[in-house]
Amino acid sequence: MVVKKIEVIPLGGIGEFGMNTMGIRCGGEMIVVDAGMGFPEETPYGVDISIPDYEQLEEYREELVALFLTHGHEDHIGAVPYFLKRFNVPVYGSRLTLAFIENKLEEHGILGDVLMHTVEAGDVSEVGNFEVEFINASHSLVDCFSLAIKTPVGTVVHTGDYKIDDTPVVGDPYDLEALRRIGDEGVLALFSDSTNATVPGRTPSESDVIPDLAKIFDSAEARLIITTFSSSIHRIQIVLDLAEEFGRKVCALGRSMMGNVELAEEMGYLEIPDDLLVGLNDARRLEDDEIVYLVTGSQGESRAVMWNLATQSYKGLSIKDGDTVVLSARIIPGNEKRISKMIGAIYRKGGNIIEEKRRLIHVSGHASQEDIRILTETARPKFVVPIHGEFRMLFRHKEFLKNHVGYNDRDVILVEDGDVLELTADSAEIVDRIEPSRVFIEDDGFREIDLETLKERKKLAFNGVVNVTVTVDPSSGEMASDPVITLQGVGGIDGANGFRGEAAEVIADALAELGPDALSDIPATEEKIRLVLKRFIKRTAGSKPLIIPKIVRTSNGRSNQ
Amino acid sequence: MVVKKIEVIPLGGIGEFGMNTMGIRCGGEMIVVDAGMGFPEETPYGVDISIPDYEQLEEYREELVALFLTHGHEDHIGAVPYFLKRFNVPVYGSRLTLAFIENKLEEHGILGDVLMHTVEAGDVSEVGNFEVEFINASHSLVDCFSLAIKTPVGTVVHTGDYKIDDTPVVGDPYDLEALRRIGDEGVLALFSDSTNATVPGRTPSESDVIPDLAKIFDSAEARLIITTFSSSIHRIQIVLDLAEEFGRKVCALGRSMMGNVELAEEMGYLEIPDDLLVGLNDARRLEDDEIVYLVTGSQGESRAVMWNLATQSYKGLSIKDGDTVVLSARIIPGNEKRISKMIGAIYRKGGNIIEEKRRLIHVSGHASQEDIRILTETARPKFVVPIHGEFRMLFRHKEFLKNHVGYNDRDVILVEDGDVLELTADSAEIVDRIEPSRVFIEDDGFREIDLETLKERKKLAFNGVVNVTVTVDPSSGEMASDPVITLQGVGGIDGANGFRGEAAEVIADALAELGPDALSDIPATEEKIRLVLKRFIKRTAGSKPLIIPKIVRTSNGRSNQ
Repeated sequence: MVVKKIEVIPLGGIGEFGMNTMGIRCGGEMIVVDAGMGFPEETPYGVDISIPDYEQLEEYREELVALFLTHGHEDHIGAVPYFLKRFNVPVYGSRLTLAFIENKLEEHGILGDVLMHTVEAGDVSEVGNFEVEFINASHSLVDCFSLAIKTPVGTVVHTGDYKIDDTPVVGDPYDLEALRRIGDEGVLALFSDSTNATVPGRTPSESDVIPDLAKIFDSAEARLIITTFSSSIHRIQIVLDLAEEFGRKVCALGRSMMGNVELAEEMGYLEIPDDLLVGLNDARRLEDDEIVYLVTGSQGESRAVMWNLATQSYKGLSIKDGDTVVLSARIIPGNEKRISKMIGAIYRKGGNIIEEKRRLIHVSGHASQEDIRILTETARPKFVVPIHGEFRMLFRHKEFLKNHVGYNDRDVILVEDGDVLELTADSAEIVDRIEPSRVFIEDDGFREIDLETLKERKKLAFNGVVNVTVTVDPSSGEMASDPVITLQGVGGIDGANGFRGEAAEVIADALAELGPDALSDIPATEEKIRLVLKRFIKRTAGSKPLIIPKIVRTSNGRSNQ
Repeated sequence: MVVKKIEVIPLGGIGEFGMNTMGIRCGGEMIVVDAGMGFPEETPYGVDISIPDYEQLEEYREELVALFLTHGHEDHIGAVPYFLKRFNVPVYGSRLTLAFIENKLEEHGILGDVLMHTVEAGDVSEVGNFEVEFINASHSLVDCFSLAIKTPVGTVVHTGDYKIDDTPVVGDPYDLEALRRIGDEGVLALFSDSTNATVPGRTPSESDVIPDLAKIFDSAEARLIITTFSSSIHRIQIVLDLAEEFGRKVCALGRSMMGNVELAEEMGYLEIPDDLLVGLNDARRLEDDEIVYLVTGSQGESRAVMWNLATQSYKGLSIKDGDTVVLSARIIPGNEKRISKMIGAIYRKGGNIIEEKRRLIHVSGHASQEDIRILTETARPKFVVPIHGEFRMLFRHKEFLKNHVGYNDRDVILVEDGDVLELTADSAEIVDRIEPSRVFIEDDGFREIDLETLKERKKLAFNGVVNVTVTVDPSSGEMASDPVITLQGVGGIDGANGFRGEAAEVIADALAELGPDALSDIPATEEKIRLVLKRFIKRTAGSKPLIIPKIVRTSNGRSNQ
């Protein structure tokens, strides 16, 4: 069989932030790149993350041969356990990525069941029809890859998340040389990060935050409290180096911060001088100008350390007069309000705050337009498919390539989650579409919550619910007891007992009207009750709750004559 | 009686955005400044606005003499009908403010019951112990006031919302001369807008957007669609003027935009050349380069025109290739995601978008730091109380006055909603505190939803609910029928019927265990059922829904022996 086409099916991450997952199918085999989680707006409904609905890949079950991971951020690996529980295929990733995965699989109790292949930049893995080369990519995390996926039809490059950083703090610059070599051999299609495609110029290097952070270390006269993402290994190394230089110890606080510092040191990503790190008890004994607290919670998360320091206390520690607090992270859209509230709380306690806006204390991990130009001109793909980002960013990515890198309109293809993109040696075309769908994970565990349950919760939340149970004596057709009416979250009802009495009368009237027919068609009678109650509640309370009527027959009514 | 003190009680707007309301009490009388609405995060629970809980003013009922309104924005007047339904006092406001209020009172059916006093800048109203002078204030809306409130103890100035705009488009500049005269007479305390207190420099004038908007008019080759706040009278006048200049007609779309354009023209705020405005049917017949659509929905509101044009259509109108869309408004924090989605949808339909970031097409209506300096130095108050804004902004306002305007720490007082601030001729001190509270208004009407109902809705939404009704025959103590179990929004239950069968057994076992005692203490038995079901659901489904058990006795059981 001559293989003539590749099918690419993104299930998440295109047209939205998070849930990055892409199936690549060729010659009857499919690999998947990344399995990420998303952070949905549905948090009021008891869920905190979303993942792609992998049910959509069931039709390819027999074809699935491997899962490749570009890097260890949650929007690329957060759904891996859910994916693997359904499709137990081998996993390929960097050392750090797989260390993160191990922790996850252990939490899910499936660590022993999964085959993992640790790979390094420069390695090539052959899996079925696919030959995947791992290219060192620079990003805000370390040990990240772009993937060059060679197939019988041609080579597809998936950038993962990247920026072109010539002076990263930890690890090597983006390996443009490898990409150029692959480009020389010919790249059919480039799937390319669009997160910062609206941003002109180059993304600053991870090193670029050192001068302003050094100034802060230099001028702080009391405690320093720095919050950043716990996965920002470069940033953590910078803080450690500056602490050493300015004679401060470092105390990491928060589960993920402590865990990642320990893991990254063990694995050799972080270089930590002896005795630099101290535990909380030792930290407390130091003078205020001898300590840096490196803490979780840059997004104002209510369970994280920074929020607790700001609003109350964390293990007895609290912001106090003279503290310098550094928010060395971007504000993820949607978190503005609570971060602003956290900053207010810090001011209130006498802390001084250094925000990103005022100094260069954070840089993005994603390619800006000139990074995109460098990468694209190095790979020289025939087709480009913008990925990772909302449609607005994908569109601007395309515009940039058209207006500033010389691509034709038809060679930059805008796809969306669920589109099936067919690539041949000289064409790229959307040929089919599966409706993309999401599944939610319950807030306090790993359980999946489907869309139906979520819709029910939305209805409950919006209007409240009235449950009505009417017990009917089948022999007489009359109510065997007062109807049981429970109200939750229903607006406009003053005095629930009075309401229940009147509602009971309304129901009794409706049943009397139906007479002996009431029990011959229970669904119809329930619907009748629902309607009379709906009208009654709308009229008296002005509200429109969900109404759930149930009729139950007494089982012993027959003996009751 | 010699009056020696003023008490100021802010109920909303301090430490938060929106719900501006402030009680000012002197010599046994109280006036209230503004009664605004807020935009709460609780929208998933069927409410769309919040208002201060005016119950807190009940203790001053006999003292309340008037409501003064600074201007007509919703965060200052949105709660007026709710306030007046409770306290029917006379209302003082500008022509435009009272025109907005009239519409509201009519909707609430209380227009005939309310006494309104229309005042102009320069007027002085005497109400009891208070002599209130209305000072013309420049802002993004027109016909706005700062208030100089003279009392036997001293003069209090309330800025309302303002910026120092020397070249507003509609109306006069901020009346610094009046404020200087009042300052000459002595100002005890200044309550001053902090919304932009973190922003250095001067706030640009409303006129400053004209050049960039003119460029857009000049270069647009097809339809122009401009969205802004419907209350932005200056901006609307600019669009009308530019349309006239560039030979386009204007079609206003959206209820509030059409309403405000009509109202503002009738009242003489807008100058509209004859035949400039056209209806939608006429607009459709024009060439693409002959029309500007001026539409609602700059915040991506799903019911507004812009969202519908972008995603589907509005009365048959839709974004098309070549359209130039102008977002001439700020992005209110919290709306970033949906606005970004709307922009994506516009790109997708072929529209070109001009966003605020890229050109000066929007200016703030609030004082930046140098505006604050000008106002403060003109009024020369003894004390300053930062108002309007999150704590972060109030704090920065204070810092600015200390570091750059020469105020002492003790003379700038940071208060919060609910604080009772006592002013005497030479002191300002927080002497008491009432706990501030909010009430919510139902999404589809005017009904108040209290915090309790909202808490119930949150619980329902987070975990779902199980209602269980058990009918018991009082003579035997046994179930007279199967328990009725309804589930809404409960996660982890596969096959509700199987679940109900097993749950019924669990309940039957519990009742059997209790035996004939089951009916002697119904609350205890219900609690028992709740506990066994809770354990059963936790174990089998892993979830923790709200469980509402009800036991009902058959009324005719007695005859059943």
